[in-house]
Amino acid sequence: MDLALYQPQIPGNTGTLGRMCVGLRTHLHVIGPCAFDFSDRAVRRAGLDYWPDLSWTLHPDPESFLAWLGDRQPVLVSKHGRLRYDRYPYTADSVILLGNEVRGLPAAWHQRWAEYSVHLPMPGPVRSFNLANAGAIVLCQAVITAGLVDDFVPPALPG
Amino acid sequence: MDLALYQPQIPGNTGTLGRMCVGLRTHLHVIGPCAFDFSDRAVRRAGLDYWPDLSWTLHPDPESFLAWLGDRQPVLVSKHGRLRYDRYPYTADSVILLGNEVRGLPAAWHQRWAEYSVHLPMPGPVRSFNLANAGAIVLCQAVITAGLVDDFVPPALPG
Repeated sequence: MDLALYQPQIPGNTGTLGRMCVGLRTHLHVIGPCAFDFSDRAVRRAGLDYWPDLSWTLHPDPESFLAWLGDRQPVLVSKHGRLRYDRYPYTADSVILLGNEVRGLPAAWHQRWAEYSVHLPMPGPVRSFNLANAGAIVLCQAVITAGLVDDFVPPALPG
Repeated sequence: MDLALYQPQIPGNTGTLGRMCVGLRTHLHVIGPCAFDFSDRAVRRAGLDYWPDLSWTLHPDPESFLAWLGDRQPVLVSKHGRLRYDRYPYTADSVILLGNEVRGLPAAWHQRWAEYSVHLPMPGPVRSFNLANAGAIVLCQAVITAGLVDDFVPPALPG
C-alpha cells in the first residue's frame, strides 16, 4: 500500500501523514518539486518525529512519479471523486494519491483517473478538509479494506 | 453526533477537528480547563478558519461535561480500545470522546467506559497517531455508520 502526496506545501501535514504511514506500515511518496527540504536537520526541526522510521521515496518531479507508477491506476482522493472512500475496493497494491493543499491535483490527472477517484462525505459548508486528515481517513480505510491489519490486536489497558 | 475533546493542548488539532465538524455537520465539545483561549481574536490568529461556522460547547471542567452527558455512554477513542473503530455501531446520538494529546484520558474514564472504547489499527512502531487524524478517522466512520451522510453527492468536476 502506497500513499503519494503531490507537491505538498505544509511540512506538518507531510509529517503527520508520514507518522500514519509508519503506524500503518505503508510507503510514502512525495512528488516534487517541493518547497521544503527533507534533510535530517530540517525534518527534525519540523518535528517530523518518525521520519527516520519511514519507508519513503522522493520523486523529483511528476514525470518521475508517473514513470514509477507505470500502467497502474492510482486512487485519487478528490472532492469530486466518484465513489465514497469507504466503498472503494482497495488492495495491498493500491496507490492512494492526494493533491497539493492549495492547488489540488493537475486537471489532466483528474480527467485521466476520474474512474478511480474517491471522495469524503462533506455535507457542511467547508471548501475542503485538512489534507492530513483526508489522507489519514482514506489510508486507514484502505489498509482495513485490503485486509492488511486483520491480525492487529491493541495493547491491553495498563493496570 | 458529537465529538468531545478532553483538555486539548494544540490549537491546530482543535482547529482542524472543528473544520471536520463543520464539514460533517457534527457538534464539537471542548472539555476544559484549556490552555488556549477561544476569543474571536485568538481563534483567528490560530488560523481556525471555520470557527465562526462551528456549532460547539465549551465545558469549563470535566464535571460540567459529565453533567451534560448524563447517563449516556461516550465512545472512547483509545489505543487500548476494545473494538476496531470501523466495527462500532455508531448512531446519530453517539458522543465520540478523544483524550489530551499528551496525557490521554483520565484512568477512571478508561475503566468506566472500557466496554464502549474503540482503537485504530496501528501495527507499526509509533506511540500514537496525531490526535486530529485519529479524531477525523473515527468521526468520518461514525457519520457513515450512523447513516448521516447517505444523501451526500459530491460536486461535479469543473469543466
